Amino acid sequence: MFSKEQTQVLYLPDLTWPEVEASLPQIKLAIVPVGSTEQHGPHGRLQTDYAAAREFALRLGQRLYPKVLVTTPVSIGFSEHHIHFPGTLSLRASTLIAVLIDIVVSLRKHGINRFFFVNGHGGNEAALTIVINRIKHEMGCVAAWSTLPWDLIGDLSEDFTRSSITGHACEKEMSIMLYIWPDAVKKDALAPGAIRRDAFGSRQKAKGIREATFFDEITENGALGDATKASVEWGEKAVNTGLERILPYLKEFMERKIGS
Amino acid sequence: MFSKEQTQVLYLPDLTWPEVEASLPQIKLAIVPVGSTEQHGPHGRLQTDYAAAREFALRLGQRLYPKVLVTTPVSIGFSEHHIHFPGTLSLRASTLIAVLIDIVVSLRKHGINRFFFVNGHGGNEAALTIVINRIKHEMGCVAAWSTLPWDLIGDLSEDFTRSSITGHACEKEMSIMLYIWPDAVKKDALAPGAIRRDAFGSRQKAKGIREATFFDEITENGALGDATKASVEWGEKAVNTGLERILPYLKEFMERKIGS
Amino acid sequence: MFSKEQTQVLYLPDLTWPEVEASLPQIKLAIVPVGSTEQHGPHGRLQTDYAAAREFALRLGQRLYPKVLVTTPVSIGFSEHHIHFPGTLSLRASTLIAVLIDIVVSLRKHGINRFFFVNGHGGNEAALTIVINRIKHEMGCVAAWSTLPWDLIGDLSEDFTRSSITGHACEKEMSIMLYIWPDAVKKDALAPGAIRRDAFGSRQKAKGIREATFFDEITENGALGDATKASVEWGEKAVNTGLERILPYLKEFMERKIGS
Amino acid sequence: MFSKEQTQVLYLPDLTWPEVEASLPQIKLAIVPVGSTEQHGPHGRLQTDYAAAREFALRLGQRLYPKVLVTTPVSIGFSEHHIHFPGTLSLRASTLIAVLIDIVVSLRKHGINRFFFVNGHGGNEAALTIVINRIKHEMGCVAAWSTLPWDLIGDLSEDFTRSSITGHACEKEMSIMLYIWPDAVKKDALAPGAIRRDAFGSRQKAKGIREATFFDEITENGALGDATKASVEWGEKAVNTGLERILPYLKEFMERKIGS
Amino acid sequence: MFSKEQTQVLYLPDLTWPEVEASLPQIKLAIVPVGSTEQHGPHGRLQTDYAAAREFALRLGQRLYPKVLVTTPVSIGFSEHHIHFPGTLSLRASTLIAVLIDIVVSLRKHGINRFFFVNGHGGNEAALTIVINRIKHEMGCVAAWSTLPWDLIGDLSEDFTRSSITGHACEKEMSIMLYIWPDAVKKDALAPGAIRRDAFGSRQKAKGIREATFFDEITENGALGDATKASVEWGEKAVNTGLERILPYLKEFMERKIGS
Amino acid sequence: MFSKEQTQVLYLPDLTWPEVEASLPQIKLAIVPVGSTEQHGPHGRLQTDYAAAREFALRLGQRLYPKVLVTTPVSIGFSEHHIHFPGTLSLRASTLIAVLIDIVVSLRKHGINRFFFVNGHGGNEAALTIVINRIKHEMGCVAAWSTLPWDLIGDLSEDFTRSSITGHACEKEMSIMLYIWPDAVKKDALAPGAIRRDAFGSRQKAKGIREATFFDEITENGALGDATKASVEWGEKAVNTGLERILPYLKEFMERKIGS
Repeated sequence: MFSKEQTQVLYLPDLTWPEVEASLPQIKLAIVPVGSTEQHGPHGRLQTDYAAAREFALRLGQRLYPKVLVTTPVSIGFSEHHIHFPGTLSLRASTLIAVLIDIVVSLRKHGINRFFFVNGHGGNEAALTIVINRIKHEMGCVAAWSTLPWDLIGDLSEDFTRSSITGHACEKEMSIMLYIWPDAVKKDALAPGAIRRDAFGSRQKAKGIREATFFDEITENGALGDATKASVEWGEKAVNTGLERILPYLKEFMERKIGS
Repeated sequence: MFSKEQTQVLYLPDLTWPEVEASLPQIKLAIVPVGSTEQHGPHGRLQTDYAAAREFALRLGQRLYPKVLVTTPVSIGFSEHHIHFPGTLSLRASTLIAVLIDIVVSLRKHGINRFFFVNGHGGNEAALTIVINRIKHEMGCVAAWSTLPWDLIGDLSEDFTRSSITGHACEKEMSIMLYIWPDAVKKDALAPGAIRRDAFGSRQKAKGIREATFFDEITENGALGDATKASVEWGEKAVNTGLERILPYLKEFMERKIGS
Repeated sequence: MFSKEQTQVLYLPDLTWPEVEASLPQIKLAIVPVGSTEQHGPHGRLQTDYAAAREFALRLGQRLYPKVLVTTPVSIGFSEHHIHFPGTLSLRASTLIAVLIDIVVSLRKHGINRFFFVNGHGGNEAALTIVINRIKHEMGCVAAWSTLPWDLIGDLSEDFTRSSITGHACEKEMSIMLYIWPDAVKKDALAPGAIRRDAFGSRQKAKGIREATFFDEITENGALGDATKASVEWGEKAVNTGLERILPYLKEFMERKIGS
Repeated sequence: MFSKEQTQVLYLPDLTWPEVEASLPQIKLAIVPVGSTEQHGPHGRLQTDYAAAREFALRLGQRLYPKVLVTTPVSIGFSEHHIHFPGTLSLRASTLIAVLIDIVVSLRKHGINRFFFVNGHGGNEAALTIVINRIKHEMGCVAAWSTLPWDLIGDLSEDFTRSSITGHACEKEMSIMLYIWPDAVKKDALAPGAIRRDAFGSRQKAKGIREATFFDEITENGALGDATKASVEWGEKAVNTGLERILPYLKEFMERKIGS
Repeated sequence: MFSKEQTQVLYLPDLTWPEVEASLPQIKLAIVPVGSTEQHGPHGRLQTDYAAAREFALRLGQRLYPKVLVTTPVSIGFSEHHIHFPGTLSLRASTLIAVLIDIVVSLRKHGINRFFFVNGHGGNEAALTIVINRIKHEMGCVAAWSTLPWDLIGDLSEDFTRSSITGHACEKEMSIMLYIWPDAVKKDALAPGAIRRDAFGSRQKAKGIREATFFDEITENGALGDATKASVEWGEKAVNTGLERILPYLKEFMERKIGS
Repeated sequence: MFSKEQTQVLYLPDLTWPEVEASLPQIKLAIVPVGSTEQHGPHGRLQTDYAAAREFALRLGQRLYPKVLVTTPVSIGFSEHHIHFPGTLSLRASTLIAVLIDIVVSLRKHGINRFFFVNGHGGNEAALTIVINRIKHEMGCVAAWSTLPWDLIGDLSEDFTRSSITGHACEKEMSIMLYIWPDAVKKDALAPGAIRRDAFGSRQKAKGIREATFFDEITENGALGDATKASVEWGEKAVNTGLERILPYLKEFMERKIGS
């Protein structure tokens, strides 16, 4: 249904309960995709982040089949900083935490005790950190998250982007979407970010400092970078490099001992 | 993307923010699909309820285009009564309420003040009732929900079903899915409900009484009724009758005055 | 004290702790009356709902003596839809849920594990549904509710009422009060509901749809139906039919096995 | 209904909404009775505290008629320290606070901005203090509480009681009940407190220190003092002295300016 | 570090974890100092209450060494009634309760099950009462609090103060600070309280009644009494009398049996 | 009092309210130090993080005098990952968020609308991110945080440390403490971290992934790196470089426009 490459992947929404039951003895890990419904400039559809998280998670699920169960994606995240752009939805941080904890509590009742969150949206990171800590410290399970493929491909960016200010609805993100879920890209609307240079200048001084911002303070059209430079080839490289780099970790993580 | 009939419907995940912005002056109502990720017997995939809610909402969105915005579906609901069946996910009632309120709060920031929840799952009804009351009484907006098409087609059921105990993963629900989103049905697994007659006997006395139950107390395979009797024709009739019957209401609802 | 027919009923407020202790070995079920303090038109006193719930519960307690403990009534419920009428008090839904859960937690410490809520007010139903689910799913106890005698006497209404729109402070409710707790009725003030026909017309289309409403939107004097037609005879019939119909259920419910 | 002396008192449960509406222009103050459902030794019925609070409040309501509205009593309070005695019900402190705040929020919608809580139970005092602070600091209204008549008649106690350890289900409390609401007293069961002297000895050193206790740690039968010495005459003196002493305060309090 | 007399006291912030570990077998009790950051007139620095609580706790820790662990002080309390005076910080009551509970939960993980709160600020008392009840009733531990040395030296006050209205930033409090932590006193700014006599007159009638107040309603400069009369000698007497009087209690409390 | 260099710094605990009032017209920013009470190996006292945050904040307060108010430090943070080491205290993330929000709400009542959190402990970062977002998005104020001096001196680390695994109770942290608050260091206990190499090896693969951990899983004595190599000179360089680098940012931040 939701993914085009669903063969040989345990994607929860596509399964019946007897299928889940039959797979449980082999399942060592649940992967929970977490995204957002938020503006991505004139060219990224609002589903961008949850489509990306879902697709990346499904690719992991395929490669780790049948040891991994990919759950229903969390399709609304923390996006209050984008709320001035029409259509953006946001959960309060406390709500997002509650949703993620409830999913984990449900999965534990089915006997799953290891949780990896494939995050598609930077705004979710604080909530995810609080959630993995509660899973580890209060429930005695193991948990981790990563914003993928971003957190694993920092070195790839250099050779691709010329525009110095990327990170949202930019050439990198649109490249990834063109490869992983092209429906999220409105190709005839690709445009460079209308960055407010003065605001960005000021933020430059803020290297190493986290300052709360509304996204319209730094870009007029909601995009950074220059999405017109997006290329499916770079997207493919980014996604596959990310997959490659996380697999060794996940294979070890899937064997982590449970219990404090 | 998510719907097969997406032309001429304002489906939030498929839009960019400038498209939402351009539509807002005409939008009078947001429709929020609310479903579940839960067991639906041996033949219904776990996505059944949220797929149904999404698809019914999209059909409303098409018929009421461009006055209605259909939002990202809420794909996990309150399903604790199904939790003994592997794969089922459940939000606590308080979490589900928080999610729905946060969506409404976001939409209000975009200028939308009328909310209709297309519900695909009976377990969400208490939370939805609390939510529409808060929207009305605390926010001065208008709000309503219905479990669709179920709540509008009670009279249709009689001439179709012979099995007396329907209501979940039964011939009626599978008929509706066959018409509205056939991917949710595992056709080669259709089977009658393995109802625990004794438990049901006892519940018969409970007409007019709401007793908390685990679903495995009343059916061994998670299904009621007899899904082998499902027919796409009845599904079509049920869905279209439901659509027909709710449209006059929604047309009036879309004009409800805002403010206490 | 509170009831006129208190002989042979275990009514918690009227007992001392050694009396409760002596009765506990026989007690199989706690019945918790839940009502409201809210407007009931020009003729129903604000206590109407909690008096009705208390009195119905006490009659059950008498008939099931000594197996049933009737607790202190919850005398304020969810009544935000009546708040525009002076004097109405309302708990938030979350507060009402907390109150009911706390009562249950207390009773469990005394060894009681089955809970039936006699509800006297429609506005409480969503909270009650959430509460019985938590009792069942989180505590491993059994729980049920019914709005009484209303939910059991739908068929009786037809032969009595001519006015088509009943349900609050109407001839039916006042008939029941005249029989079960006449002090709640201000007899010299009985008046027909001042229904806003236009609003009701619109709601007619809403059959099968739950829309949040302020009660003053549908009736100017807070009443529906025509209370001048109230009769103690019909009230007696309604109450006794309700009692008769629920007793077989409760006798079975009292023997429900505890534990998930 | 609930009070034997209801003439000329605005007791919310006994009124209809038009009666409340007619009285509102003169009402300057709401009095909220707050009690408990908890053990009171072998002789005090579980309703003792809420009956006392209600009756004291009603007497104030009579003396200050028509400037005071007496609300539905809060009949379950914080009684966790009595929970080891069968029948005791307890709200968590956070629930009790929520209930009281919700009552205040409702009354403010009717235009009332001054709140006095007649408390009948020591266990409620911390919650009440938090509540009046929130009313004052967050809502800009005025609020006060007193445990009555206890907090105003410390000097009366000396000449009456010989037993040194009083304060719950003792001669003083039973005297007050015999006068104010004799139905709460099981007269044929009056007995002295079965005090655990060792525990009390230790607490003696705790003068000026607040230590959390379960009541069964200090008395075997739940009573302190010696209720066999209870006298309706002392009860009358205690109640009337309390009334006399609080009236000048309330008259001034009723005129307190609202708003920060 | 924080205390001038730190020899032979187990003050948590000054220890390393191996030192705590080595001490734990002997530790029978944790003492948690709880204060505030709030105005204390023109002469008391905002740290007054937490400095006092910390210093009193440390003196107890010295006298009961090595059986007592003194924790990091809670340096912000409930001070909303002082918020109109610049610089005052306040936690909501619910936040303060959460902080104290979290400290207790942490200490229990290290094996400590008895908790005594040395309180330096009246505004914290309701929260502390709720906290010790939760520790006792929910956790099966023992807990107590006292506002020190105030709650133990009522009889000392008479012979010292002439000014009738004391209790905050007055000669008594400043005397205590001059002895226990003189840095909290701005000696060249000592001034009598600028009491609003009319407000105080009204409160006089409120003996035995707790009314919520903003402190600027009763004193213009935030002080009561007459701090110019403060004497280090009285402070010394007050502190040492308090210490003397509480030690026998704490010695017994340290041996209290744990568990319900 | 708390700082050795308090001249010419507005440190809230050391001020009286009239002093705060006199300074407010010039104050443009509040700096809130946030630390922890947690194990820092055999050589770092439990106060390490809050002492560091307080001292760094005070140095900023001196350099930006009189435009900056430094508040009472938050001395307990989120440290659940260290809880297996005796003495560690931890707030739940939700409690820490509540504390920080309450401080901000209090300061806003005094007219302050810009907030900078000097963080001394990595475990607080998720909570701080949620807090600055709420301040910005819900209150219309500006807010930022940085873990100092760490987040600004990444380039300095290379030339100093040879041990590859630093970050807690290591030579870097102890160097900083030796310079900024030497009392936090137990000099005769300096020891290298007893790192569990296997665990660390596994985490190496986790570059770019955030996995929840208990600190005793990666180090036996709670320390990383090699604190015996700590030098006050490097500490001085690290602190002063951090101060230098953040000042230009703060000067601009102090002028940020308030209001959404």
